[in-house]
Amino acid sequence: MPSTPAPSAVKAALKTQVIETPSWGYGNSGTRFKVFAQPGVPRDPYEKLADAARVHEFTGVAPRVSLHIPWDTVEDYGKLAEYAAERGLTLGAVNANTFQDEDYKLGSVTHPDPAVRRKAVAHLLACVDIMDATGSKDLKLWFADGTNYPGQDDVVARQDRLAESLAEVYQRLGDDQRLLLEYKFFEPAFYTTDVPDWGTSYAHCLKLGPKAQVVVDTGHHAPGTNIEFIVAFLLRERKLGAFDFNSRFYADDDLMVGAADPFQLFRIAHEVIKNGGLEPERNVNFMLDQCHNIEAKIPAVIRSVMNVQEATAKALLVDAEALRAAQRSGDVLAANGVLMDAYNTDVRPLLAEVREEMGLHPDPVAAYRASGWQERIVAERVGGTQAGWGA
Amino acid sequence: MPSTPAPSAVKAALKTQVIETPSWGYGNSGTRFKVFAQPGVPRDPYEKLADAARVHEFTGVAPRVSLHIPWDTVEDYGKLAEYAAERGLTLGAVNANTFQDEDYKLGSVTHPDPAVRRKAVAHLLACVDIMDATGSKDLKLWFADGTNYPGQDDVVARQDRLAESLAEVYQRLGDDQRLLLEYKFFEPAFYTTDVPDWGTSYAHCLKLGPKAQVVVDTGHHAPGTNIEFIVAFLLRERKLGAFDFNSRFYADDDLMVGAADPFQLFRIAHEVIKNGGLEPERNVNFMLDQCHNIEAKIPAVIRSVMNVQEATAKALLVDAEALRAAQRSGDVLAANGVLMDAYNTDVRPLLAEVREEMGLHPDPVAAYRASGWQERIVAERVGGTQAGWGA
Amino acid sequence: MPSTPAPSAVKAALKTQVIETPSWGYGNSGTRFKVFAQPGVPRDPYEKLADAARVHEFTGVAPRVSLHIPWDTVEDYGKLAEYAAERGLTLGAVNANTFQDEDYKLGSVTHPDPAVRRKAVAHLLACVDIMDATGSKDLKLWFADGTNYPGQDDVVARQDRLAESLAEVYQRLGDDQRLLLEYKFFEPAFYTTDVPDWGTSYAHCLKLGPKAQVVVDTGHHAPGTNIEFIVAFLLRERKLGAFDFNSRFYADDDLMVGAADPFQLFRIAHEVIKNGGLEPERNVNFMLDQCHNIEAKIPAVIRSVMNVQEATAKALLVDAEALRAAQRSGDVLAANGVLMDAYNTDVRPLLAEVREEMGLHPDPVAAYRASGWQERIVAERVGGTQAGWGA
Amino acid sequence: MPSTPAPSAVKAALKTQVIETPSWGYGNSGTRFKVFAQPGVPRDPYEKLADAARVHEFTGVAPRVSLHIPWDTVEDYGKLAEYAAERGLTLGAVNANTFQDEDYKLGSVTHPDPAVRRKAVAHLLACVDIMDATGSKDLKLWFADGTNYPGQDDVVARQDRLAESLAEVYQRLGDDQRLLLEYKFFEPAFYTTDVPDWGTSYAHCLKLGPKAQVVVDTGHHAPGTNIEFIVAFLLRERKLGAFDFNSRFYADDDLMVGAADPFQLFRIAHEVIKNGGLEPERNVNFMLDQCHNIEAKIPAVIRSVMNVQEATAKALLVDAEALRAAQRSGDVLAANGVLMDAYNTDVRPLLAEVREEMGLHPDPVAAYRASGWQERIVAERVGGTQAGWGA
Repeated sequence: MPSTPAPSAVKAALKTQVIETPSWGYGNSGTRFKVFAQPGVPRDPYEKLADAARVHEFTGVAPRVSLHIPWDTVEDYGKLAEYAAERGLTLGAVNANTFQDEDYKLGSVTHPDPAVRRKAVAHLLACVDIMDATGSKDLKLWFADGTNYPGQDDVVARQDRLAESLAEVYQRLGDDQRLLLEYKFFEPAFYTTDVPDWGTSYAHCLKLGPKAQVVVDTGHHAPGTNIEFIVAFLLRERKLGAFDFNSRFYADDDLMVGAADPFQLFRIAHEVIKNGGLEPERNVNFMLDQCHNIEAKIPAVIRSVMNVQEATAKALLVDAEALRAAQRSGDVLAANGVLMDAYNTDVRPLLAEVREEMGLHPDPVAAYRASGWQERIVAERVGGTQAGWGA
Repeated sequence: MPSTPAPSAVKAALKTQVIETPSWGYGNSGTRFKVFAQPGVPRDPYEKLADAARVHEFTGVAPRVSLHIPWDTVEDYGKLAEYAAERGLTLGAVNANTFQDEDYKLGSVTHPDPAVRRKAVAHLLACVDIMDATGSKDLKLWFADGTNYPGQDDVVARQDRLAESLAEVYQRLGDDQRLLLEYKFFEPAFYTTDVPDWGTSYAHCLKLGPKAQVVVDTGHHAPGTNIEFIVAFLLRERKLGAFDFNSRFYADDDLMVGAADPFQLFRIAHEVIKNGGLEPERNVNFMLDQCHNIEAKIPAVIRSVMNVQEATAKALLVDAEALRAAQRSGDVLAANGVLMDAYNTDVRPLLAEVREEMGLHPDPVAAYRASGWQERIVAERVGGTQAGWGA
Repeated sequence: MPSTPAPSAVKAALKTQVIETPSWGYGNSGTRFKVFAQPGVPRDPYEKLADAARVHEFTGVAPRVSLHIPWDTVEDYGKLAEYAAERGLTLGAVNANTFQDEDYKLGSVTHPDPAVRRKAVAHLLACVDIMDATGSKDLKLWFADGTNYPGQDDVVARQDRLAESLAEVYQRLGDDQRLLLEYKFFEPAFYTTDVPDWGTSYAHCLKLGPKAQVVVDTGHHAPGTNIEFIVAFLLRERKLGAFDFNSRFYADDDLMVGAADPFQLFRIAHEVIKNGGLEPERNVNFMLDQCHNIEAKIPAVIRSVMNVQEATAKALLVDAEALRAAQRSGDVLAANGVLMDAYNTDVRPLLAEVREEMGLHPDPVAAYRASGWQERIVAERVGGTQAGWGA
Repeated sequence: MPSTPAPSAVKAALKTQVIETPSWGYGNSGTRFKVFAQPGVPRDPYEKLADAARVHEFTGVAPRVSLHIPWDTVEDYGKLAEYAAERGLTLGAVNANTFQDEDYKLGSVTHPDPAVRRKAVAHLLACVDIMDATGSKDLKLWFADGTNYPGQDDVVARQDRLAESLAEVYQRLGDDQRLLLEYKFFEPAFYTTDVPDWGTSYAHCLKLGPKAQVVVDTGHHAPGTNIEFIVAFLLRERKLGAFDFNSRFYADDDLMVGAADPFQLFRIAHEVIKNGGLEPERNVNFMLDQCHNIEAKIPAVIRSVMNVQEATAKALLVDAEALRAAQRSGDVLAANGVLMDAYNTDVRPLLAEVREEMGLHPDPVAAYRASGWQERIVAERVGGTQAGWGA
C-alpha cells in the first residue's frame, strides 16, 4: 500500500523553495566562435534586475539574484540593493572574476608571480566589501586557473598558493558569510585545472573551516560522472553549499537546467530531499548558472526555474516508505519502480495549483509572453552597450 | 633479424612531406572567457604570411598557408599570392566561414530559411572564386550548424538542406579542386551537429563524388575514439582528403599537435604511412589547425611542425617486415614490440641531420629565437587591430 | 492552437508495434567479476521460450524471440519453431557467435589465419540454415573482433577480410532474409574494434547491398554520442535495420532500456516516428538486448517492453504540426516546448487503456507477479545447468 | 645551460625502485564474453610465485608479490612466505575479495543486511590475519559494492555502512600495517559505486587515520581525468598509499601499463618524483594490476615492469632546475620543452646499463625467452585447474 506524501506538504515545500537567478543570464553570451546579440538585452545591472524581477513576478520563487563582479560593478551597491528591494528582490551570491584581466593569462590566485596573486586576492576581498554593502551572504569563487601544457607550472606549488589565497579571504568573511568554492573539470584551462573536481574543493573547504563549502555546477564534470552521488556525499559531510544549475550534453554547454537530462535532475533533487538539502538550516543555495546563447533569455530563465520546480516536485512525490521497504527487501525492480513512479508523474497540474494558490498565473511562460515586457525592453533598450561577458 | 628501413629512404620521405600552416594560427585566439592578446601579432593577411614564411624558413617543410575567409579577405588575391610566392610560400586550402554572421544563429547551409542558405552557399561559391585567384586546390568546409535543444529543428530536413547546398558547391569546383568536408563532435552546437562524425562526412562525400573528401581534425571526436582507425578506414576508401592537426585532453582544446598524446600522433602517422597516405598521388593535405592561446605563436607553430615530423619519422622507422611477421604469427607482444621500438627511438638526431642536409639549422626553435624576428614584429607591429577570430 | 494527435491513432500504433525479446535475457548473465545465478532460470531454449511467452502474454506486443547460436542450439529447429508457435510466439533474429571458441582469441571473420576465418564464415552460413528452418528473417552479426594492443594486427587487412567474409554470407541470404550488422565502440577488444561505429557498419552494408542494414545497439557508443542523430540519419538512408535496446550510464552496461536515460529513449522514439521508422514497410526490428544481472529477469523484460512502449507513446503524442511551425519560425524555446510537453505527459493511463482494449491486465508486472509463474519455475526448474553465456 | 641530473643518481634511483607484481597477473583472465586459457598457467599460489620469481630474476626490481584472497588461499601462509623467500621474493599487499560470493549480489561492506556486512568484515579481518602470517604490510581494499539502478539502495546509508565497516578493520591493523582504499569509476556496478573517485576514498581515509591511504588504479577514472593531478594532490596530502598500474583506452581495460598512453605514465612518474613519491619514507607501493587476456603472461609482466622503469627513468632525467626557471619566467613553451626533452629521450640504453650493473641481462624479455621457462611450464603444468578469477 503506497504511502504517497500528502499533497499539502508537497505544495508547502514547493512554495518555500528559493531559486536564485544569475545577473549574467540576462545578458549576451556565446561561444568562442560567436556571441549572437539579442534585442532588448540589459545595458547595466539595473536593467538586469528589472528582468530578474519579471522572472520572480511570474514564478514566485526567484526572489534572489547573483551578481558578477566586475560585470555588475556599480558606484553604489547600497543603491543597487535598494533598487532590487523595490522590485521584491534581494541580492544573492557575489561571483568574483579573476580571469579576464591580461595579468591572469597564467593564473590568478595560483599564479607564479606573487604580485598577480596579491591583485587577485585584493579583488576577492573587494567582493566581500560588496557583500557587506549588498547584504549578500555568499562569496562564490570559480577559478579559471590551470595550465594548458604539461610542465607549464608546478601542480603542487599552485595548490599551495591556492590554499594561502583562500585562507586570506576566509579570514575576511563576516560571521554570516560563506565562501563557496566551485570546481570545474576543464575549460578554459586544457591540461590541469587547479580545482578540477569535488574532492579538491572539499579538501580545501575542510581545511578552511565551516564557512567554506562546495558548489556543485551540474555542467562541470567528466563524462559519465554520477553527480547525485556527489550531492549526497557532500550533504552527508555538511559541505554542500550551493548548486550552479544548468545542463549539458557534452562539456560545459550551459544549456537550460533539465534540458539535456531531466531524469538526472530528478535524481539530484531526490538526493537533495532525501538528505535534508531542502531544509532551511542546511542553507543550500539553488542557483542557476546558464548561457542562453540562442534562445530568448527571460523566458529561458523562467523555463529553467520551472524545470527545477518540476524535478523537485517529482522528488517530493517519492514514496519514501515504500522505497525504504523495497531497498530493505533487496527488491531491485520494486525500489527502482518506486522512484520511476514519481518521475513518471506529470507534475505540471500540481505546480499550476501551487502557483494559483500563490496568486500567480498557472503558466509563467504564457504570463510573461502576455505581459508585454519583451516588446517593451526591445523598444526601450536602444543604444548603449549590451551587457555580456566582456571577454 | 630486424629489417629496419634504410635511413636514406626515411630522410628522403621526411624532406618531401609538406605541412600546411593556418593563417589564423598566427593571430589571437582564446576561449569564450577571454582572448589574451600577444604583442607582435599580425594585423592583416600579409603580416600573417610574413610570419608563416619564418616557419617555413626554419623548418623547410611548411611552404603552404591555409586562408580563412573572411578573416583573410583582401582586395586582390592575386597580389596576396604573389606576396606569398616572394617569400617561398603558396596559398593552400581556403576555409569558409558561415558561422559569424547574425543570420547564422540557427544555421547556415542547413538553416530552415532558404534565404539564409542562399547567402551561405553564395559565400562558399565566392570562396571557390578566391581559390581560382590564389591557385588554391582545396575548399575546406567546416559547418558550425546544429541545434542546442531537442526539437529545435528537424534533423533529417537539415541533412537534406546540407546535401543540396553541398551539391551546388561541388558543381562549381574546377577539375583540380577539391571539397574537403570536416566533421566535429560538438561545439558550438550543443545538442545536434549537422556533420558530427566521419560517417556523416563520408556519406555526403560519397554521394557528391570523387572530388569530395573527408577532413580528420584530430580534436573533433568523442572521448576515447580511435582516430587512427578512422584514418586507416578512410585511406582504404580513398576518402581521406586532409588532416587538421592539433591535440586535446578534453574537448576541442586546439593545443599544439602532439602535445597531449604523442603516442596517438605516432599511431596516426603509422596508419598514414602503412596505407600510402604519404604518397603524392594520395594527395593528403597535412594541415595544422590550432589555437596558441597562451604560448608564443610562431615558435608554437614551429614546434607543431616538428612534432608532426617526429611522429612521421618514428612511423617511417617501423620495421614493416618484422611487424607483418609478428602479426602473422599471432605474437601479440612481439607485434606491439616492433611498433614500440620505433616509437621509443629518439628521432631528434635524425631530424637534425635532415635539416642540415636541407641547409637548415638543426634546431628550428633556437634558430627562430636567434633570428630577431620576434623582437622585430613586437617593435614594428604597433597600432592597428590585431588579427583574431572576430567573434 | 495545439493539434494533438488523435488518441485513437496513437493507440492503434501502440497496438501494432512489435518488440522482440532475446532468449539470453532469460538466462544468467553478469560481469567478468561474477555471474550471480538466479533461481528458476531456464536450462534450455524451450524453457526460455516458455518465459518469453509470459512476457508476450502480459504485454501483448512481444510475440517474437531472438535466438543466439550456439547458446540456443537444438537438434530440431522446426520443432523449436513449433513449440514457439504453440505459445503464440515466432522465432526472430538469429544471432551468430564467433567469440567463444579458443580459435577466436585473435579474431573470427577478420582473423589473420584463413582457416579460422573459414570456420567463422561456416558458422555464419550455418546460422542462415537455421533461419531457413525457423523462418527467421534476420541474421544479426556482432563481431567481438579487434585488437588489444597497437601493432597487434593490420587494421586495413582486417577490413579486407571482414568485407570478404560478409560478402560470402550475403550471397547465401534468401530473398526475404537480411544481414544486420551491429557496431560496438569497444569491449571485448580494447584497442581497435573492427566494426566500432555506425559509419563502418554503414560503409560495409552499402557495398553489400540492400539486404544489409545497420543495427543500432543503444549501449554501443562513445560517451556523449547523439544516438538519435544516427537513427535519423540511417532512416534517411534506408539503412536502419534494427535496434538492440538497453541502457547504460558508462560503457555497455546492458541495463534495462530506458532505465538510465528515459529522455534519450524518447528522443530516439521521436526520430523513429518522425522518419517513418514505425511503418511496416521500413521493417525496423525493435529488439531488446540486455543483461538482468541482479534484477529478476522476466519482470525486467516486461518492464523493458513497457519502457519502449512509454517512450513510443510519448513520441506519438508530439504535436508534429506545432513542432514544424515553431521550427520554421525559429522559436527555439517553443519548439523545444512542444517536444517537452509530449515527454512530460504521463502516458501510463493511456497504455493501461491500450492493454485493456487488447484484453490484457492494465499492469503487466502486477499481472505477472500474480500469475504464479515465478514460483512455479523456481520450484520446477531444479537440477540441470542453467542457461547463461557459457563464457 | 641545462643542468641535467647526474646519470649515477638516476641509475641509483632506478636500482632501488621496487615494483610489486600481482599473483593474479600470472593466471587466466578475460572479459564477460570469454576467458581464453593459456598453456602453462599456474594451478596454485606456489606456481604463481615461481613465475613471479622469473620476473624478478630478469628485471631485478620486482621482488614482491601481491596476494588475492581467496584466489591465493593456502593452508599454511608461513610456508607460502618461506617458499617465496627461497626464490628471493617477499609477499606484498593482501587483496581482499568480497565480490564473488552469492551473498554479495547487492553489496558486501555496504549491503543493507547486517549479516552480509558482518561476513564481509570477517573476511577483511581474516585477511589481516594472513598479513600477520605473511609479513605483508598492506591490506588493499577494492569494493565492487554499488547499485545498478536508481533507487536500488540509499546512497548515504551505504556510506554510513562503509565507514563503520572500515573503522572496524582499521582498528585491527598492526602498527606497521596499512589499509589501502582503492576507488573505481564503475564496473561491476553500473549506476552508483560506493567508492567511485579519489575524493570519496580520501574522505574516508582522512577519518580513519594515518594508516589509511588511497590507491590510485590508473584504469579507474572517468574519461579525460587528469590522473597525475590526483597523484600530485595526494602526495601533497600524504595520502597516496599505492598505485595499481595498468593502462586503458576506454574503461578499465587492464592492459599492460604504458601500453595505451606512455606519455601519461611519464607525467605520473614526473609528479611522483617531483613530489617525493620515490623516497622510501613516503612508502608508496608501485604495484601492477593487469589482465593479460590474450598476450603471454610472464613476458607481459616483464614488459610492464620495464615500462614503469622507462617512465621513471625519463622522469628522473627531467632538468628540474631548468623547469623551475621556465615556470618562473612564464615561458610556457620552454617549460613544456624541458619536460618533452626528457620524455623524448631514449632511455633503453640507460636501463640496459642499469641492468648490467646489477648483473642482469640488458634485455629482460629476451633473457626470459632464452631461459626455457615458458617451454618448461607448458610441458610440466598439465592437468589440474588453471588459476583464474573464479568468476
